[in-house]
Amino acid sequence: MLVLGIDPGLADTGWGLVACAPDGSRARLIEYGVVRTAAGLPLAQRLDTIFRTIGDLIEQWRPVAVAIEQLFFAKNAKTAMVVAHGRAAAVLATARHHVEVTEFTPLQIKQALTGHGRASKIQVQMMVRAVLGLKDVPKPDHAADALAAALCLIHTLGRQRLLGPAARAAAQSASVAEHDPRSANKNLLAQARGATRKRGRR
Amino acid sequence: MLVLGIDPGLADTGWGLVACAPDGSRARLIEYGVVRTAAGLPLAQRLDTIFRTIGDLIEQWRPVAVAIEQLFFAKNAKTAMVVAHGRAAAVLATARHHVEVTEFTPLQIKQALTGHGRASKIQVQMMVRAVLGLKDVPKPDHAADALAAALCLIHTLGRQRLLGPAARAAAQSASVAEHDPRSANKNLLAQARGATRKRGRR
Repeated sequence: MLVLGIDPGLADTGWGLVACAPDGSRARLIEYGVVRTAAGLPLAQRLDTIFRTIGDLIEQWRPVAVAIEQLFFAKNAKTAMVVAHGRAAAVLATARHHVEVTEFTPLQIKQALTGHGRASKIQVQMMVRAVLGLKDVPKPDHAADALAAALCLIHTLGRQRLLGPAARAAAQSASVAEHDPRSANKNLLAQARGATRKRGRR
Repeated sequence: MLVLGIDPGLADTGWGLVACAPDGSRARLIEYGVVRTAAGLPLAQRLDTIFRTIGDLIEQWRPVAVAIEQLFFAKNAKTAMVVAHGRAAAVLATARHHVEVTEFTPLQIKQALTGHGRASKIQVQMMVRAVLGLKDVPKPDHAADALAAALCLIHTLGRQRLLGPAARAAAQSASVAEHDPRSANKNLLAQARGATRKRGRR
């Protein structure tokens, strides 16, 4: 199955497509990139560019699910509003193409990828590189963050599938803080170790 | 010509349609309302409702221009982000239907309607009522605010037309602060007085 991850913004919207087995294993990088919109253009035009590009990606690749980072700004209301506009355009593109979008907090993404919520940006990026078996961390950061969101969703979907439909509802209602990072991240971490081993052997 | 005004939000998006002569005179209320989306629904669905409703209004009435209030939040970044999402959905609907959207600050709207930027909400609403020759202030507030945005755009367009194409560019580049409220609002204020007189005669 295919999953699209989105790192929202107005100037830069990162996106990343990841393929994986239905149980969330064997994650493979398909494509990634950044939608850029110039600050000088009218807002309507910038939003339309994001909306069209994400829409085209969904149209072209038909991902089964989309993951997008939730916004968390305590510092600057103006920056928050600007990013929120771009984020809405991306979310709206998923709605228009009838693909379910799941929102993750930065904490959830960090926990899913590294096993703890206080991981640094670099640690998350290194896990993206390891899980996808890449030589380098994808650039720019917005693309790496989008791939991290996609992997977080794959981790969640895989975990729900492994648990079965009965436990799925319980897992969904359980708060992130209650997760045992060791068991919750076994799958992704195991894959990362596998990928590292494979590259070591080459 | 027809002008659509929008008071953006996620839970409540106010809208108001106003007809007027090409010089901005003889403003008449056509319709107004509020798009409501329930807080419990997924974000994608709420944005899609706003996007579709504003899109349907544009499709149905074909306004020549759309006016939307700019966001100004100093207090709460979270509220700002929520409103910004809904605002982006409305702006995107105008872009998708190829209608130009003009953004106005609350200050610009107050100045256009009352002649001074420090007018109260009530003063602005009373001017909406007077200019459109209504018996009461339109309810809820979001609808009245949307109509105020539409009247602000009509005022601006009318003023630019009266000035002619040469002075138009100059007027566009002039900051709002430089406007002389007395001359800038002559048209709307005159119309409001006319409307009051007419009602008085009945």
